[in-house]
Amino acid sequence: MDQKGYRRGSFQSATSDEDMLEIAGASMDFSMADDDPPLDREMGGFSSYNGGGMNGTSTMMDFLEEPLPGVGTYEDFNTIDWVREKSRDRDRHREITSRSKESTWALLHSVSDAFSGWLLMLLIGLLAGLIDISAHWMTDLKEGVCLAGFWFNHEHCCWKSNTTFTDRDKCPEWKSWSQLILGHGEGAFAYILNYLMYVIWALMFSLLAVLLVKGFAPYACGSGIPEIKTILSGFIIRGYLGKWTLVIKTITLVLAVSSGLSLGKEGPLVHVACCCGNILCHLFTKYRKNEAKRREVLSAAAAAGVSVAFGAPIGGVLFSLEEVSYYFPLKTLWRSFFAALVAAFTLRSINPFGNSRLVLFYVEFHMPWHLLELVPFILLGIFGGLWGAFFIRSNIAWCRRRKTTRLGKYPVLEVLVVTAITAILAFPNEYTRMSTSELISELFNDCGILDSSKLCEYVNDFNSTKGDDLPDRAAGPGVYTAMWQLALALIMKVFITIFTFGMKVPSGLFIPSMAVGAIAGRLLGVAVEQLAFYHHDWPIFSGWCSQGADCITPGLYAMVGAAACLGGVTRMTVSLVVIMFELTGGLEYIVPLMAAAMTSKWVADAIGREGIYDAHIRLNGYPFLEAKEEFSHKTRAMDVMRPRKNDPPLTVITQDSMSVEDVETIVSSTTYSGYPVVVSRTSQRLVGFVLRRDLIISIENARKKQDGIVSTSVICFTDYCPPLPPSSPSVLKLRSILDLSPFTVTDETPMEIVVDIFRKLGLRQCLVTHNGKLLGIITKKDVLKHIAQMANQDPDSILFN
Amino acid sequence: MDQKGYRRGSFQSATSDEDMLEIAGASMDFSMADDDPPLDREMGGFSSYNGGGMNGTSTMMDFLEEPLPGVGTYEDFNTIDWVREKSRDRDRHREITSRSKESTWALLHSVSDAFSGWLLMLLIGLLAGLIDISAHWMTDLKEGVCLAGFWFNHEHCCWKSNTTFTDRDKCPEWKSWSQLILGHGEGAFAYILNYLMYVIWALMFSLLAVLLVKGFAPYACGSGIPEIKTILSGFIIRGYLGKWTLVIKTITLVLAVSSGLSLGKEGPLVHVACCCGNILCHLFTKYRKNEAKRREVLSAAAAAGVSVAFGAPIGGVLFSLEEVSYYFPLKTLWRSFFAALVAAFTLRSINPFGNSRLVLFYVEFHMPWHLLELVPFILLGIFGGLWGAFFIRSNIAWCRRRKTTRLGKYPVLEVLVVTAITAILAFPNEYTRMSTSELISELFNDCGILDSSKLCEYVNDFNSTKGDDLPDRAAGPGVYTAMWQLALALIMKVFITIFTFGMKVPSGLFIPSMAVGAIAGRLLGVAVEQLAFYHHDWPIFSGWCSQGADCITPGLYAMVGAAACLGGVTRMTVSLVVIMFELTGGLEYIVPLMAAAMTSKWVADAIGREGIYDAHIRLNGYPFLEAKEEFSHKTRAMDVMRPRKNDPPLTVITQDSMSVEDVETIVSSTTYSGYPVVVSRTSQRLVGFVLRRDLIISIENARKKQDGIVSTSVICFTDYCPPLPPSSPSVLKLRSILDLSPFTVTDETPMEIVVDIFRKLGLRQCLVTHNGKLLGIITKKDVLKHIAQMANQDPDSILFN
Repeated sequence: MDQKGYRRGSFQSATSDEDMLEIAGASMDFSMADDDPPLDREMGGFSSYNGGGMNGTSTMMDFLEEPLPGVGTYEDFNTIDWVREKSRDRDRHREITSRSKESTWALLHSVSDAFSGWLLMLLIGLLAGLIDISAHWMTDLKEGVCLAGFWFNHEHCCWKSNTTFTDRDKCPEWKSWSQLILGHGEGAFAYILNYLMYVIWALMFSLLAVLLVKGFAPYACGSGIPEIKTILSGFIIRGYLGKWTLVIKTITLVLAVSSGLSLGKEGPLVHVACCCGNILCHLFTKYRKNEAKRREVLSAAAAAGVSVAFGAPIGGVLFSLEEVSYYFPLKTLWRSFFAALVAAFTLRSINPFGNSRLVLFYVEFHMPWHLLELVPFILLGIFGGLWGAFFIRSNIAWCRRRKTTRLGKYPVLEVLVVTAITAILAFPNEYTRMSTSELISELFNDCGILDSSKLCEYVNDFNSTKGDDLPDRAAGPGVYTAMWQLALALIMKVFITIFTFGMKVPSGLFIPSMAVGAIAGRLLGVAVEQLAFYHHDWPIFSGWCSQGADCITPGLYAMVGAAACLGGVTRMTVSLVVIMFELTGGLEYIVPLMAAAMTSKWVADAIGREGIYDAHIRLNGYPFLEAKEEFSHKTRAMDVMRPRKNDPPLTVITQDSMSVEDVETIVSSTTYSGYPVVVSRTSQRLVGFVLRRDLIISIENARKKQDGIVSTSVICFTDYCPPLPPSSPSVLKLRSILDLSPFTVTDETPMEIVVDIFRKLGLRQCLVTHNGKLLGIITKKDVLKHIAQMANQDPDSILFN
Repeated sequence: MDQKGYRRGSFQSATSDEDMLEIAGASMDFSMADDDPPLDREMGGFSSYNGGGMNGTSTMMDFLEEPLPGVGTYEDFNTIDWVREKSRDRDRHREITSRSKESTWALLHSVSDAFSGWLLMLLIGLLAGLIDISAHWMTDLKEGVCLAGFWFNHEHCCWKSNTTFTDRDKCPEWKSWSQLILGHGEGAFAYILNYLMYVIWALMFSLLAVLLVKGFAPYACGSGIPEIKTILSGFIIRGYLGKWTLVIKTITLVLAVSSGLSLGKEGPLVHVACCCGNILCHLFTKYRKNEAKRREVLSAAAAAGVSVAFGAPIGGVLFSLEEVSYYFPLKTLWRSFFAALVAAFTLRSINPFGNSRLVLFYVEFHMPWHLLELVPFILLGIFGGLWGAFFIRSNIAWCRRRKTTRLGKYPVLEVLVVTAITAILAFPNEYTRMSTSELISELFNDCGILDSSKLCEYVNDFNSTKGDDLPDRAAGPGVYTAMWQLALALIMKVFITIFTFGMKVPSGLFIPSMAVGAIAGRLLGVAVEQLAFYHHDWPIFSGWCSQGADCITPGLYAMVGAAACLGGVTRMTVSLVVIMFELTGGLEYIVPLMAAAMTSKWVADAIGREGIYDAHIRLNGYPFLEAKEEFSHKTRAMDVMRPRKNDPPLTVITQDSMSVEDVETIVSSTTYSGYPVVVSRTSQRLVGFVLRRDLIISIENARKKQDGIVSTSVICFTDYCPPLPPSSPSVLKLRSILDLSPFTVTDETPMEIVVDIFRKLGLRQCLVTHNGKLLGIITKKDVLKHIAQMANQDPDSILFN
């Protein structure tokens, strides 16, 4: 078998550096066949695990009752076999159901087993809500402290205060750190001092964040969504969803956001919620022991994460369904919905804000939009698509450079430099100085009559104002200043985000993407508004926008722009629109959002097919078989299978004619993870498939414990072993470890069907036959390499099996 | 092969009678093998269709360019092969893509091909919206006519009127038919006259409806959702989604609703929307010719149907995803969403109501609910579950009786009798006399200060009223009367709906189910409200419901009850909650709805696993492989495959040793739809699978057009045919019609995996091997029969293949 094409490389990803190598195991190599590293010798004991639980209930039941350590689990950085995992869960379920008729206790066990999924969802929802609240509190701790009680956050503190004050944000109980320590100051010197303090605080926060990540939880960096997508598709990354990752990511996330870097906390919150889900899985045997069941829980946890991040439970469920999940049975849909709701309501009922807002950016628009406005909305969509494609290309190019050059060796320095540049550039501009979510909030806001922000500094004509309804007005000087500042902020955000995403701190993309779009949208919105105000007699405006009418809502443009940019980067569609819809709650704004999201996706797809998460998955070489893309080439299974045409034939084991020594020679001379068993070498008729790990354990065990097993003993995989001459040593029967139902396809099967089978059934390998004769084998890695090759990508970028 | 187990029955369903038999073809028989009725002799010509387009591009391209009539299509009442259909579409797509580089015209063709799906969705959305509007207009036509213009409906007519009037419903322009014809009358005699007229109108409408259905479109009866589920799972029912069904169903639906029968128009609207989708598919080659692609469009059309029925686009998409669709790729999700939105906005922009309400029942609640109220909400859930289970059992029992006894022979009489009983019982009670959707509207309504309906006749204490906020008040005599009338209405609705659903008129279940729940909910709501009013000092009320506070909203209880009952009957979960959420728009009411829907599903599932649609699918014997239920028995492929243990061996064709005569004998002596091709009878090594239809066409064609093909000619399925003695006749090469990639499983494969393969890949048949030797075959029908047998149901209830 051709081994030259495989790179004996070490695990290295955009979000990893030398630290992670220790975890990933630098000695691993990733060739197709050796996904079973040297067997753990402590494992001992006869493995009754039979590769799918397919031959007889008794062995499976023994396995359930007395699990041998390590059996049925997977090595790190390996793909799981969904069919096997689901079979195991069904076996478990069958046993519990059949036992439940025996005693009341067993019945109770069966009921509790059925409800444990719901309990788990409840806990995940609660925990996800709590984490979001603590992150909020920590964010405010950066600014100051509440004298009335340090556990109150800023808004809650001022809300508790009963003194009257004009500005909602200023109340005597809330003291900023500078108020506490430095005292007030005005003038140039104070400005420079504040500037310096701003940069120093930013550097301190980011340094702390990167050191924590580096020191305690290297997996806590990045947004985590690419890895979660990969894990959910059936891949093992141990520790990625562990408790340390949870703790460190929560803390460093707040530090990173506080440091003023151009990043958000929404993506990482999904990762944090998945950590919760994974940790809580350990409470229930059903989920602890089964990788497939656990992935159902993680899908729901991802939904809960988005639900708390945006306050959008339905959007969260659709995000999980559309973006991150792989297997998403309808049962999971309903449970995810439950988890997402519980999360949203936990957040609300222990509400630290003192108001009843559930959503991240609460928006209330009053005016309907006009059909002609679809033109600027579609322009925003085009902008979003272009920006998305540009961002993905530049970010991936930068991350690749980080991986391949010396740049990746100094993650701390990199973070400090980017933080310093961000802080230095951000401070002079009001709109970059404020936190990005505040900025988005302000941009989404529809100017009311009482709004005092610069963006709402219009020339008021109180004669034409009726009630709350504000007509379109001429922009005042404040608006023009704001426009310039926003334009500068836009340029800065666009570039700095490219360098920020992928650094060794937790960093989400949702908020920076939305900010870019919101700025562009607001700029366009104000421009259209002024155009309509000064030129309401133009034919395009006449008829729907007369003088003194409120026809343009710049906040809506900002929202549409945010949706377009987010869509361009992530290529979300339905979930994006639903999340945005849940922010406004008005069905009528779905159409603009949808038009922008659709345009943005089309434009971005025309430039590059991959969204940012898929691009990072490919960059890291994870074995992710995309469920959305259809394989469209006309190759056949024979073009993909191993061995290739001129390679030596496939290594097989015969069912009743090989001795223990023969098999041991095969096992030690090859590194494949499993061997097909055939009737005889000449006929090549397939009998079954045996896993390397099972074979080694069984032979070792038999040599130790079973009398008469020597190197010349014949290994027999059949039910009835052939009679042997009386002088020969006793036969080693290994029927129980043989998987009698391996998946097969013929060599003429089109690869599009093979890809479909791998995708839909979650296979790890598939055997190839021709006229009933075994010809070769296709593994998931072979499929992925073939897809990469067909797409003119480097097939060696697929690192793992 | 055992043929005894198969019933040579005729197609008969709950919604069919002797009329449908003519359509279904009374001469059909439903054994596993004969799903290919006598070949259409006009078809002529060599079939280059090669069963999946798997061997070479050239033949497939020919096929694309010169489609032979009938080739690649399916017979009526047969299952489609998803793998084959999807392969064909990919071939088509590949060809268009490769050609697009050749010329500008081809490029334009490729672009228009890519966008045709979106255009189709737009058209479906528009049409679905228009149909809903015309149905509304026809409903009002029953009551009267607008003198200002007959094309205005009631509400629009009065809205146009510029005379002032107190009651929104009464304006001089709108004349009811009785006003036009009879003039007014009061007193006992007038009451009797009105009563009589009511019954006569009802009988006339229903007679017209049933006669139209019987005469023109027998498929227009029932809700259509069970059949649409089956069709979407890959089954052919010709004419079920045709233009006559569309026209007749739209008209009779309005007639049936107008007749006052206990049925709704929401389910049938889904059917009507699917008819639109199917008819519009004929505009685009891509969708006209491919059954799998067409089903994607139908999924989206179903979403658009629910979207217009309830004004809930997101709920519609989730309904399609959760309830009716089978294959629902993410691309379809996004397109469905688009179609659903367009539909909702068409409805709104050509709004015939003159208001901007998008939703069916517009509800606005002001008061939050208290945690303790979850107790009555869960009680409503239990009621809903019990009612759902009771309804399904009784309705199925009644439908079975209709199928098996003489009752089914008189559909017109049945409709008339049920209408008469309904009308006679309904008239005296105000709440049954009004249309069911009006009733639900009134029950959902939160009593405002100006509401004049009986349900809002509370003892007003204007001293305690502040602004719009109405405190809980003592019920007045009107409320008590209403309670009694509602209780009677509840009893009547519960029983009459059982007999109504399944009659030979279009009948939806959503509205009657919701009405039952809404009545029960309102009754409970008022009871709790009065309890809280009179006993606000009880510990359970103190603390959250002080005197003079508005704590209970009976309208919310009605809504929760409606959700519970609908959930109990249909077993919808997420989509139900989202639809209800879209009616109110308030995230806070999701929790009560969810609690009720969940309880209701659990209670109903504990009594019987099937929802009403699944129960009707089983009653009709459709080959529907449920995607939600997991197969949990420990049987293996060898237990299910044909031939059984003591049967004669499987009929096979050898690859290069059979003469034309031999094959013709096999074809004429068996009725199987396809034959496996093996290397030789003794080795039984599988080469491929050949379809009966292709075989017959090819042999016939060769005998006519190819020289030297006689009965003794050898048929050769291999690439290189073995050399024959020079005296023998020339060889008939049939490689091109051989499917070289049939799906195989081993005989030891657990059935749970086989079921999964059939479900996920959409197979029609699967071959079974043992040690590389062909053993038998499993068809979709075998799988369904086995599932029925394992669930202790009659395996012969599965009628179709």
